[in-house]
Amino acid sequence: MEYTKTGKYIAVGDLLLLVGKDKKELIVRIREGGETQTHHGVVRHDDLIEKHCWGDVVLSHIGYAYTLLPPSLEHLIRNIKRNTQIVYPKDIGYILVQMNIGPGTQVIEAGTGSGGLTLAMARMVMPHGHIYTYEIREEMQNLARKNLDYVGLSEYVTFKVRDIEEGFDEQNVDVVFLDVREPWHYLSQVHTALKGGGFFGALLPTTNQVSVLLRQLERNNFGYMQVEEILLRHYKAVPARLRPVDRMVAHTGYLVFSRAITAVT
Amino acid sequence: MEYTKTGKYIAVGDLLLLVGKDKKELIVRIREGGETQTHHGVVRHDDLIEKHCWGDVVLSHIGYAYTLLPPSLEHLIRNIKRNTQIVYPKDIGYILVQMNIGPGTQVIEAGTGSGGLTLAMARMVMPHGHIYTYEIREEMQNLARKNLDYVGLSEYVTFKVRDIEEGFDEQNVDVVFLDVREPWHYLSQVHTALKGGGFFGALLPTTNQVSVLLRQLERNNFGYMQVEEILLRHYKAVPARLRPVDRMVAHTGYLVFSRAITAVT
Amino acid sequence: MEYTKTGKYIAVGDLLLLVGKDKKELIVRIREGGETQTHHGVVRHDDLIEKHCWGDVVLSHIGYAYTLLPPSLEHLIRNIKRNTQIVYPKDIGYILVQMNIGPGTQVIEAGTGSGGLTLAMARMVMPHGHIYTYEIREEMQNLARKNLDYVGLSEYVTFKVRDIEEGFDEQNVDVVFLDVREPWHYLSQVHTALKGGGFFGALLPTTNQVSVLLRQLERNNFGYMQVEEILLRHYKAVPARLRPVDRMVAHTGYLVFSRAITAVT
Amino acid sequence: MEYTKTGKYIAVGDLLLLVGKDKKELIVRIREGGETQTHHGVVRHDDLIEKHCWGDVVLSHIGYAYTLLPPSLEHLIRNIKRNTQIVYPKDIGYILVQMNIGPGTQVIEAGTGSGGLTLAMARMVMPHGHIYTYEIREEMQNLARKNLDYVGLSEYVTFKVRDIEEGFDEQNVDVVFLDVREPWHYLSQVHTALKGGGFFGALLPTTNQVSVLLRQLERNNFGYMQVEEILLRHYKAVPARLRPVDRMVAHTGYLVFSRAITAVT
Repeated sequence: MEYTKTGKYIAVGDLLLLVGKDKKELIVRIREGGETQTHHGVVRHDDLIEKHCWGDVVLSHIGYAYTLLPPSLEHLIRNIKRNTQIVYPKDIGYILVQMNIGPGTQVIEAGTGSGGLTLAMARMVMPHGHIYTYEIREEMQNLARKNLDYVGLSEYVTFKVRDIEEGFDEQNVDVVFLDVREPWHYLSQVHTALKGGGFFGALLPTTNQVSVLLRQLERNNFGYMQVEEILLRHYKAVPARLRPVDRMVAHTGYLVFSRAITAVT
Repeated sequence: MEYTKTGKYIAVGDLLLLVGKDKKELIVRIREGGETQTHHGVVRHDDLIEKHCWGDVVLSHIGYAYTLLPPSLEHLIRNIKRNTQIVYPKDIGYILVQMNIGPGTQVIEAGTGSGGLTLAMARMVMPHGHIYTYEIREEMQNLARKNLDYVGLSEYVTFKVRDIEEGFDEQNVDVVFLDVREPWHYLSQVHTALKGGGFFGALLPTTNQVSVLLRQLERNNFGYMQVEEILLRHYKAVPARLRPVDRMVAHTGYLVFSRAITAVT
Repeated sequence: MEYTKTGKYIAVGDLLLLVGKDKKELIVRIREGGETQTHHGVVRHDDLIEKHCWGDVVLSHIGYAYTLLPPSLEHLIRNIKRNTQIVYPKDIGYILVQMNIGPGTQVIEAGTGSGGLTLAMARMVMPHGHIYTYEIREEMQNLARKNLDYVGLSEYVTFKVRDIEEGFDEQNVDVVFLDVREPWHYLSQVHTALKGGGFFGALLPTTNQVSVLLRQLERNNFGYMQVEEILLRHYKAVPARLRPVDRMVAHTGYLVFSRAITAVT
Repeated sequence: MEYTKTGKYIAVGDLLLLVGKDKKELIVRIREGGETQTHHGVVRHDDLIEKHCWGDVVLSHIGYAYTLLPPSLEHLIRNIKRNTQIVYPKDIGYILVQMNIGPGTQVIEAGTGSGGLTLAMARMVMPHGHIYTYEIREEMQNLARKNLDYVGLSEYVTFKVRDIEEGFDEQNVDVVFLDVREPWHYLSQVHTALKGGGFFGALLPTTNQVSVLLRQLERNNFGYMQVEEILLRHYKAVPARLRPVDRMVAHTGYLVFSRAITAVT
């Protein structure tokens, strides 16, 4: 069930990215007897299993061409089922390198939301790291759990329905990331859960929130504050007419990073 | 020697980020009897070992305050010894999520350069993944090897001094990343080394190079081309005067991503 | 009929920007007996003329609030009738300062398109400067002429339906701006029309076009080449939740500027 | 003395942009007997006057090539003598189109600073418009006056050394632009000076200032608030290696625009 391992041929249980000639994309879990309804006809899984290799182009039942690709982490994040705004892949990549999240890292996250960042971090800390993710709305966390199950990464995640006002169960974690509206209310809980020098991060849409958070970090034994913004510009990949696409996402949020510092006594 | 594991106290072998009151940063490997010369006096390692915790603020021999922090992956990349342009952390984060590089991934890279991207990828694919990195200039690769040794990640990297015109030794790898001037010359070698549907990436400074690469990808059984640019904007982290810093890195390079597609015969 | 002069009260002939409570905008020319149909009822011009001041808030016949404002040049450009892509106000502002276009400047433009840039330049060079605008498609230029008539600026513009391959009628102009697909075909005609040291500019969507134009400028006695891009980021103007809007125009075109240099003989 | 008019030949009184082979730029006022010391030798004015045309390439006394170009408004702004941060040309261009500043416009500005924006606006409103510019520091305004004298635009500007707390002498102006630290203190004075529906603008470096200004505009009978940021990206103008330059100005300030609305009584 681990999504990252693929053999030569498409096999049962594989996660597959179908890319149509029209550039439309679908993510599919391959099942015996499974069928995927595309915009241009049906693709039958039994026609693929052990018959087609990764990278092949196949035809739907009405003859429309689809390429069989392993999805990237970026595809999985973008394609989760969601009822909240997700953290964007451009921001996630930078969070990983700034907060030192990789194999073995112990992370607390709140709120879980639809689980996009949870998924990305679970993928990166496996097999020995772990994500503890807190969310106050149970139905939201159920959705995130389904998303993690779907990609086969749930075993690296512990889900908790909890108001983080009450604090975290874990101690000595490497990283705490808060994607909540008013993260400044929970800084003493965060500090208690973090290792000395540990990484704190938050994503905030408005400049006013950033100012409040910075002020409260200073007052709660955090140091080394950083505020960053990541912009992603897509280009039309046409060799003779190379140019940025017309419109872009102008803003997802400001990334605030900081570190837990020993209280001066 | 694995850099990511730290205990409560500073210990021999730890990699340490010293951050001065003046925001100047130093990365240090802790040794018995070691001394670090800062801009504001000496910090003696024996004064830290098993005596100070991560997150503590210590004083140099002339009384200047330094905070003891675990370095992030971003620090390690920025602080390697280099005699080439490095790949920037902002680009590396996005490369990781776009090319699905995480625990277990098998990656070919060329050229090694000073090893910044090598280091980041080694950190992310450990313990079961591996980086095979090719470089034509031996002295360059020696530098990269020293950089990887320094952070304790060499065991996840195989270094090869080789003109990649001759092809790669590995087959069936998940990812090939080329940071060379004319990557289009090596696309058939790349295709041979990649798994079906595998990830190809390149970083190119000029628009002309991007156009040439896109054209050659189309002719060499690659598909799903993407061209992206990542911009990072730093803010002054002052709560009452929040604003972007005055100047920024305006351009590092264009990221080109593509996939190995089965040749139509 | 000059649009820029307004008295205290709304008067016949005034150009008016109606801004609804819903932020929807309409540009209106005030006429005796005129009526403007908004999304929220009718605004009768006779209720405004000599009865309401600029800056007043009035009610439509169903009681919806509209503010009476003089339109800016930015509004006029954005609201012209168009059947082509227009040059954006963000680019026009920079073109004006880079090409020294102001009161008294003599300008040749091609193609006219819908007349957005023509309008802006006419506004800026009046009363003693002039715009000579060339367009190959007659129906297009008729549209531009209507747009200029509407805002009362036609007297500063001479419209010509002409293939610029045949050259320009004017000589010794200060500025030539080409907004055509392949401006490099007309550089000798441009050089002939320009004053010594005069300003040449072009707007091009793709990097490939920029490269071709730069190469041809070098070969045609142009110097001092500059390539620029202007990005405009809108913020939500909410004091307690200040943030960029979610999406933005990512690309309109690359601005290329150059100067006519004396041929070395 | 009007800087915008040039004949075929270089003449006494002309403002000249000297561009060296090394791309270094100098702005020079041509005088009989004048000499300009460049980094590569002396250029004698008498060798140019009535002897060389605009666009010619001339040699310094040691044989170094300089091109003779009319300066653009952008050059004049960038090259004024200054002891303050100036408003950048990228922002000025957008201010012009957003605030409807062109021939005939009546403008109040405070503070004058080094006069860069004053110069640009004076150039654009001439011959029938006017700039009234207020500054509390006399020596600063003397500098601005010299800068305006140098380019021959002083006759379109009235300089006033005054604390704008005391209000403005003018009424019924089209535009008020404040480039002061705390513009929100002067909004009632601004409203009194502006025409109904008139244009108010400010340039502010921090997000906190923008929030305060927006809040106070709402309370002082202003409407139609807009917050914008203009980013300028320079490219290396090399046809075969087209790419953005490495570093750029990341932030000059946030532009806030608004309109005077009739007080609801």
